[in-house]
Amino acid sequence: MKKLIIAACALLVFTAQADEGMWQPHQLPHIAPQLKAKGLELAPASLSSLDQFPMNAVISLGGCTASFVSPKGLVVTNHHCAYGSIQFNSTPEHNYLQDGFLAKSFADELPAEPGSRVYVTESVTQVTDKVVGSIAENASGTERYQQIEDHRKALVAECEKAESYRCSVQSFHHGLEYYLVKKLEIRDVRLVHAPALSVGKFGGSIDNWMWPRHTGDYSFYRAYVGKDGKPADFSQDNVPYEPVSYLKVSAKDLDEGDFVMVAGYPGRTNRYRTAGEVKHSFTQFYPAAKTIREDLMAIIEAEPEGSEKRIRYESTWARLDNYAQNYQSMIDIYSKSDLLERKQTLESELTAWISQSEKRQASYGKAVDALNQLVKEEQLTAQRDMVLAYLSYASAPSMAKSLIRLAYEKQKPDAKREPGYQERDMTQYEQRLKRMTRRYAPSVDKQFLAYLLKVYAQMPASQHVKALDDFFGLSNGWNEYSVMEKLDALYANTQIGEEATRLKWMKADLGSLVIKQDAMLQFAVTMHDTYMTIENEDKAHAGELQKWRPRYMAALIAYAKEQDQPIYADANSSLRISYGEVKGVEPRDGMFYTPFTKLEGIVEKETGVWPFNAPKAQLQLIAGKQHGPFVDAQLKSVPVNYLTTVDTTGGNSGSPTLNSKGELIGLLFDGTTDSIIGDWDFDEQRNRSIHVDTRYMLWAMKYLDGAENLLEEMEILY
Amino acid sequence: MKKLIIAACALLVFTAQADEGMWQPHQLPHIAPQLKAKGLELAPASLSSLDQFPMNAVISLGGCTASFVSPKGLVVTNHHCAYGSIQFNSTPEHNYLQDGFLAKSFADELPAEPGSRVYVTESVTQVTDKVVGSIAENASGTERYQQIEDHRKALVAECEKAESYRCSVQSFHHGLEYYLVKKLEIRDVRLVHAPALSVGKFGGSIDNWMWPRHTGDYSFYRAYVGKDGKPADFSQDNVPYEPVSYLKVSAKDLDEGDFVMVAGYPGRTNRYRTAGEVKHSFTQFYPAAKTIREDLMAIIEAEPEGSEKRIRYESTWARLDNYAQNYQSMIDIYSKSDLLERKQTLESELTAWISQSEKRQASYGKAVDALNQLVKEEQLTAQRDMVLAYLSYASAPSMAKSLIRLAYEKQKPDAKREPGYQERDMTQYEQRLKRMTRRYAPSVDKQFLAYLLKVYAQMPASQHVKALDDFFGLSNGWNEYSVMEKLDALYANTQIGEEATRLKWMKADLGSLVIKQDAMLQFAVTMHDTYMTIENEDKAHAGELQKWRPRYMAALIAYAKEQDQPIYADANSSLRISYGEVKGVEPRDGMFYTPFTKLEGIVEKETGVWPFNAPKAQLQLIAGKQHGPFVDAQLKSVPVNYLTTVDTTGGNSGSPTLNSKGELIGLLFDGTTDSIIGDWDFDEQRNRSIHVDTRYMLWAMKYLDGAENLLEEMEILY
Repeated sequence: MKKLIIAACALLVFTAQADEGMWQPHQLPHIAPQLKAKGLELAPASLSSLDQFPMNAVISLGGCTASFVSPKGLVVTNHHCAYGSIQFNSTPEHNYLQDGFLAKSFADELPAEPGSRVYVTESVTQVTDKVVGSIAENASGTERYQQIEDHRKALVAECEKAESYRCSVQSFHHGLEYYLVKKLEIRDVRLVHAPALSVGKFGGSIDNWMWPRHTGDYSFYRAYVGKDGKPADFSQDNVPYEPVSYLKVSAKDLDEGDFVMVAGYPGRTNRYRTAGEVKHSFTQFYPAAKTIREDLMAIIEAEPEGSEKRIRYESTWARLDNYAQNYQSMIDIYSKSDLLERKQTLESELTAWISQSEKRQASYGKAVDALNQLVKEEQLTAQRDMVLAYLSYASAPSMAKSLIRLAYEKQKPDAKREPGYQERDMTQYEQRLKRMTRRYAPSVDKQFLAYLLKVYAQMPASQHVKALDDFFGLSNGWNEYSVMEKLDALYANTQIGEEATRLKWMKADLGSLVIKQDAMLQFAVTMHDTYMTIENEDKAHAGELQKWRPRYMAALIAYAKEQDQPIYADANSSLRISYGEVKGVEPRDGMFYTPFTKLEGIVEKETGVWPFNAPKAQLQLIAGKQHGPFVDAQLKSVPVNYLTTVDTTGGNSGSPTLNSKGELIGLLFDGTTDSIIGDWDFDEQRNRSIHVDTRYMLWAMKYLDGAENLLEEMEILY
Repeated sequence: MKKLIIAACALLVFTAQADEGMWQPHQLPHIAPQLKAKGLELAPASLSSLDQFPMNAVISLGGCTASFVSPKGLVVTNHHCAYGSIQFNSTPEHNYLQDGFLAKSFADELPAEPGSRVYVTESVTQVTDKVVGSIAENASGTERYQQIEDHRKALVAECEKAESYRCSVQSFHHGLEYYLVKKLEIRDVRLVHAPALSVGKFGGSIDNWMWPRHTGDYSFYRAYVGKDGKPADFSQDNVPYEPVSYLKVSAKDLDEGDFVMVAGYPGRTNRYRTAGEVKHSFTQFYPAAKTIREDLMAIIEAEPEGSEKRIRYESTWARLDNYAQNYQSMIDIYSKSDLLERKQTLESELTAWISQSEKRQASYGKAVDALNQLVKEEQLTAQRDMVLAYLSYASAPSMAKSLIRLAYEKQKPDAKREPGYQERDMTQYEQRLKRMTRRYAPSVDKQFLAYLLKVYAQMPASQHVKALDDFFGLSNGWNEYSVMEKLDALYANTQIGEEATRLKWMKADLGSLVIKQDAMLQFAVTMHDTYMTIENEDKAHAGELQKWRPRYMAALIAYAKEQDQPIYADANSSLRISYGEVKGVEPRDGMFYTPFTKLEGIVEKETGVWPFNAPKAQLQLIAGKQHGPFVDAQLKSVPVNYLTTVDTTGGNSGSPTLNSKGELIGLLFDGTTDSIIGDWDFDEQRNRSIHVDTRYMLWAMKYLDGAENLLEEMEILY
């Protein structure tokens, strides 16, 4: 019985039936029948055009998604995506984060957090041939990696000759295809409206990943450009950007079973990883990484609540916590799932299928084995690599490492520099140096480093790095006293904690940094060669993967195609469309999540204490049944959040949720706990995305915040 | 709007519409139309006869309910009701509690825990007139109390002249009616079958009050009598008791909406308390009592897990925890409910209704005011009374107090003694003295007492008791050092920790106890007069309440009768019938509890660690979809637990759940968190009882435990 189930599920790995899939816009005509059957009324082909409604209105904030909702560049996204900007503008006198913010006129709008951007994707062009077409079959890993990087950089540089554009060459299907993505980069972004924290983040981290949910996770920005219509730095003279199209906002009825689609920039999925990678991730990496995160959190928690140091690390804590929870949930779900068995079955089936024809053998013959071999090699240093990666949480050594690297890179012509260290990256680099000021306390940073070094010291010798052992005297095991002495000296004798110094060092050349008597810089200099060696080994390995993983994907796609099933690429922060329907779910036996929550649920959760301290005015509105035109006939109340089957992941936050006509019916802002494993495995039965209903957003804007000016500016459909 | 809602709900307080009500069997013909409409197929009148099927088969274990399920005295009840007996028979070699127990033949059955009883209610007779008919209108509180007690005792003594019967005079409607309940007392009770702990208590205290639930909360006893058919002490010669009737066990289909009824012995409800009592309980008593419980739990938790002392206090901890959680849930639900407003509205309406006619004024005129005045007086010493009540958790002083009291009582003729100290009570009294041996550690007991004294010391002077202040030197506030010195002496110089000594003292006369140099006895002697004074004041007060509360109830009942609504009495551990239907519930916005859980839910919860460590064999059966005739067509699996709307409370545990034909379809074992406030307020929307489905019980007996002998003995309906 069990065998049969496994075999049936294996097929599902790439059948993308039901509502699975994050589709590239150009793929939509290929899945038109499904879309039509599901209820899409727009022509699927119209969703393929990035320069027209509605896709033109879907924009990236870099990490989050947003959309234009007026002809005057009004942008709606999640509250948690605009959080930094709201916080940036808050002061004890004007605590916009606590109380909410509303610009009653354009003049009242406030600059968003430094570095805020609005990216409008203008074109996506196949460049696979330009990236990999000329690479010799027998190129070494290093050669392959380097040539791909060179070609990508050249394409980006060429594309960015156009002023105010940000370009990238993105790999799809793990190197099988490359696309050049060209985005208009708008850099004058202003905060227009945010609800109070107790609306926009109602439920806080307690409700994170949870259902039932009652979060008003929406906020508004506005994109500004120069008078000439072109992106410009912030200036009072700038004018609102006029997008080619914008979304109309629906206050119309929405019911269980209705078609929905989400357009956005999902960050990363691992749906096509091998069985070996799945096993390693869930049984090795996630458990170990979760422990490290929790231990780092404990270091932060040792600082008194409300203390200066604690406040500096709140966002770090939240980041650690979010993924500690995420990893635990993934481990839990994995332990009850047959994901690994399905992966193994799929690999067996694929291998059998390849062996069935000589042509297939010629094309993909060694792909499965070669990829599995590379994965095994990678895992040999996996522990080391994980700890080295977590060292980035110790800001001082990690910033010193980066500054030394920058100095090295600056010795090369710009085009030859490592991505991240090119002139085009320097604005963001500077922001990072500045951000450290508010997020750094030497004593905490030192404890982070001490803890990570201890974890490192306890790893087997095979995972050790000589330079690090030598520096901290770790080759003969852990000596707490002597390590702490070294760490004390490291932090006592560095100026890296000073923002002005960091900014100065960013401009300095290598020679002047090396001769400085700064302990943290000296440590970075000492480690530099070792880090470069590891990086070069990683690149050589990546080059090998870039040879074999595309072939593995090609085999998978061909196998799926034989069954008339299109394959979507793993998420890679490029524009995608997911579709599905409004639908509740049985998260576990004996329980059902109904698809909508309503206003009264806010009152149920209300405790008067954060994160369940809804504004008094809101509670009064709810008690008074002040619903206006936003009432749902079935619920007899205003819907707050809803569940859908659409396939989304991090990066989709803020994504417009559209109905069958392409009208805005909500904003995607989360997924349920059961969807966390969606990064690896889409479970049609359990996966649910969580959206804030536009009717709740409009209700709160009208009755709670009096945002009449914005309601008038938007085109609202009743 | 709000006013209207309150008025509408006020009516509901006694309309007992929907599925509210714990009905006395004799009332059932009065609510026959509702029962028929709901789906009852039996004649309602047949449920009124205690000497025939099915009510004759419903028995009490004292604290729990059970039922006969074979002509050979086989009894089914909850696992948690048989817990003590299973534990009593468990040894490290034969850990029946962990592994379960099955007697394959009558000879293999094991004696139940000492003191175990099966009570078969044979008659319930109105004796109101005999109890209160002769009491003068102007009798003092003390006189009234004493006369009622005397009449009750006389009736009980008369009734218990019949050998092997246990009788009680129970007050209904708080003294408006009295019934003499005559129960056959079977005292040879044996353990027949219990599932493994990880089935019978699956989910443990984590799942207590929770849904979804997957608990196999069933176990089997057998009642034995002498060869003459009369109750007898345990003897190998005894024979199975042959009940007049027994329940047939249903393995038939059961669906949402189906009629169900529960017959059992619900312990206590407070549905007719005044607004003043409601307010005091929820805003004063429960919050304070919850704190005391949690603090006492913390004292236990300070003992290392698995240590001898910790083990001795596990059951005490569980008892404290159960009600700490219970109180917190009640406080939470109350804070969101309009219970107090409804009570206030009802009292206003009742007062207005009484004032509308002279006849009503003559009958009930002062009842509302007089009762409210008495309630106010009671609350004046409420803090003191609560702390004195919690002092019973300190076993040594509380047992000493009781032994001294017993010695005093023994100076009177038996009939004049305080209930609890009569000869008829001595078997249970001895059990209590013995039980202390396994549940007492002097160091923990001393900490309990020290903590409670500190709570006491911090109360206002009006709540203080001179003798206690004098003994511990508390009249000038708390002096930790000197109190601890006194406590050390108290515990160092007592033999009360020794079981043999306690049993000896039980037999001793007052004089010999008073001259003993035992510190704990001396403390009890010192306190005795004070305790007696308080008790006499309480009795005088109770006598006043016994005058006025019945009139208040009479007014309420007359008011309800005008609206053609019968009133059920508050639960009082007497036999009742509740009815309702199988039904899911929306516990909060966005979530729905489906009415049935199924086998697969056990696998979902399974962690391998207690309390979610289902037996491996069970997991294999589930994986193999071994359902047999117990499969539910809709669930496509075996149902485990289900929800109903029936009105139940503590004491109902183990109650047979019957279908419209009176066939056994499950055992009541819990209610959902939202039902906890049911002791005060039945919320038709939210109240749900939790039952184990007989199909799960039969499935586990057949496939997991191989209890074929019992399956053959019972009459199972497929």
